[in-house]
Amino acid sequence: MTTLSEVASHAGVTPATVSNVLRNRGRVSQETRERVMAAISALGYRPNLNARALAEGRGPTLALMVSSIANPFYPEFALAVEQAARDHGSFMLLCNTNDDPATAYAYLNQLSGSLSEGVLVMNCNLDFGTLRQSRAPVVLCMWEKPEEPPGLPCVAVNFRLAGQLAAEHLLRLGHRQIGVIIGNGKGGVHTTRMQGFIDTVRAAGVDLPESHCRNGLDTVQGGYEAARALLLDQPGLSAIFATNDLPAIGVMHAATDLKLSVPDDLSVIGITDIQMAQETRPALSTVAVPTQEAAEMAVDLLRKLIKQPAPADVADEMRVTSEPVLKPRASTAPPRPPKGYAD
Amino acid sequence: MTTLSEVASHAGVTPATVSNVLRNRGRVSQETRERVMAAISALGYRPNLNARALAEGRGPTLALMVSSIANPFYPEFALAVEQAARDHGSFMLLCNTNDDPATAYAYLNQLSGSLSEGVLVMNCNLDFGTLRQSRAPVVLCMWEKPEEPPGLPCVAVNFRLAGQLAAEHLLRLGHRQIGVIIGNGKGGVHTTRMQGFIDTVRAAGVDLPESHCRNGLDTVQGGYEAARALLLDQPGLSAIFATNDLPAIGVMHAATDLKLSVPDDLSVIGITDIQMAQETRPALSTVAVPTQEAAEMAVDLLRKLIKQPAPADVADEMRVTSEPVLKPRASTAPPRPPKGYAD
Repeated sequence: MTTLSEVASHAGVTPATVSNVLRNRGRVSQETRERVMAAISALGYRPNLNARALAEGRGPTLALMVSSIANPFYPEFALAVEQAARDHGSFMLLCNTNDDPATAYAYLNQLSGSLSEGVLVMNCNLDFGTLRQSRAPVVLCMWEKPEEPPGLPCVAVNFRLAGQLAAEHLLRLGHRQIGVIIGNGKGGVHTTRMQGFIDTVRAAGVDLPESHCRNGLDTVQGGYEAARALLLDQPGLSAIFATNDLPAIGVMHAATDLKLSVPDDLSVIGITDIQMAQETRPALSTVAVPTQEAAEMAVDLLRKLIKQPAPADVADEMRVTSEPVLKPRASTAPPRPPKGYAD
Repeated sequence: MTTLSEVASHAGVTPATVSNVLRNRGRVSQETRERVMAAISALGYRPNLNARALAEGRGPTLALMVSSIANPFYPEFALAVEQAARDHGSFMLLCNTNDDPATAYAYLNQLSGSLSEGVLVMNCNLDFGTLRQSRAPVVLCMWEKPEEPPGLPCVAVNFRLAGQLAAEHLLRLGHRQIGVIIGNGKGGVHTTRMQGFIDTVRAAGVDLPESHCRNGLDTVQGGYEAARALLLDQPGLSAIFATNDLPAIGVMHAATDLKLSVPDDLSVIGITDIQMAQETRPALSTVAVPTQEAAEMAVDLLRKLIKQPAPADVADEMRVTSEPVLKPRASTAPPRPPKGYAD
């Protein structure tokens, strides 16, 4: 079997350079890369990752477990994780649990410490006890409550602040008749942002009764159905906040289908700033969470835990991303003046 | 180290049942599954996938290489592949090449026959010679020209017909001033569908000059920019066909920003039927390609090749999916009558 050294010798470079080419890291000129590729091809060299992983007692991948790859936030996050992993010479193994804890559990058991050196977990409905029993390090991504550390390694985003920023934006525009669509993120993950929003509105002395709030699935269709019901029940609303961009886009569609103009008749705001938020018409106002930064921090923390394994009961480092940022776009505007008044 | 047999004995089931539970395949009652999980947890059993893969000379995953996970078609396809793989007890390792052939090559070399038993390839700009040299079987997914087999195992979709169906729809509605946005799919992958469209329009005796055609990136923004330029240059167009749904959504946004109503002033149609196509307002007319079926056929063909390896020069089985299907929605309608004529 051809070895890495033979490839290096054939290409006239060091084994480290061959390794850099294979792992796509370090500085290698295009010319050198091509020479190495030619040597690899000529000698039929193939690195045996399993053998190395077995010898080192670890796997050559980082696993990312997500609840639903169909939700466009997850591919965006996965892309950022994949880039961060590749920057450090690792592959990303993407595992989709379809919101099923048993599937998540099977992935965790089969991968951790075997195929994967570490596992990044996104909203997979696994209890923390199970995560702590993982043989390989686990980092919880996008923990929503930095003020309540989960006692597990995690990257936290201040989602309460995200809700607050959305509320302050609508209040500043002059909205007083405000509705809320709470995305059902299985496990109550949207509670924090909702509470940040509602507390801010009420603290401003604006009434926000239960009858202005609806639950919906965390999808475009879920937001559509919840908003349609809400708007038919509460026709006086001038603005709706949805706890995520997908249901917020659904709110815009529901308004359109009810012949309400966004933002003239109804302002709409979401949270996250997925790519689609910029690509709707009108473009969706939202509060951006630092997806890229969170992914990089999660990979960095995971790599630290892989290198310096800590006992499960002390591995509880929480890193907090920079703060969410308001992105006002065309879907929010001041409310129409009340009928009977001149402009 | 705990063995599978010890888990089976502890749970009072056969080792095969434990294996089925771990791999999420076969028929296992919920009660049995829970008993096995409890035994696994009590004994601290963890299957060593690397050891097994090494012993068997194969990896326990199927790899899916995509050019851009950021394009929402790929997560939809990945989800379908992942489900098909899981149905057969395999994990899916998702590799994102970011349209870079060197990254694709590095993945192929590092994974094939090592971490992965087989590789599904989607538009990764790898030449067929490289793919044929892969140690593990490779299946090309979504080959666009069933009439021209690539000489590699593949699943083909009749994209020429997809273009034809889009053209027939616009012609039947009465459109004669038709524009075309050709998505730049790197490697000319959209040529086939474009040609199917253009040939059909011209065969109907309708003029479709070069000046009605524009190239754009295969994104919402790419379609937006190409359509904006085209509509400013050719204000008489009553319909635009884009070779993919994302640029078609961009066409709709360009029309909106130019104060053109879709479909009253401009009909728009795409190809693929991604989830977003139903979720735009107006909903996008498109030609649906059988994504789920293609994913299942690709996994099935790959598994056949893994079980019955064939020499690279005879492994060229092509499977063709069922035909694309027109999905007329709200973004297409008859053209406005010419000015000066009564309805």
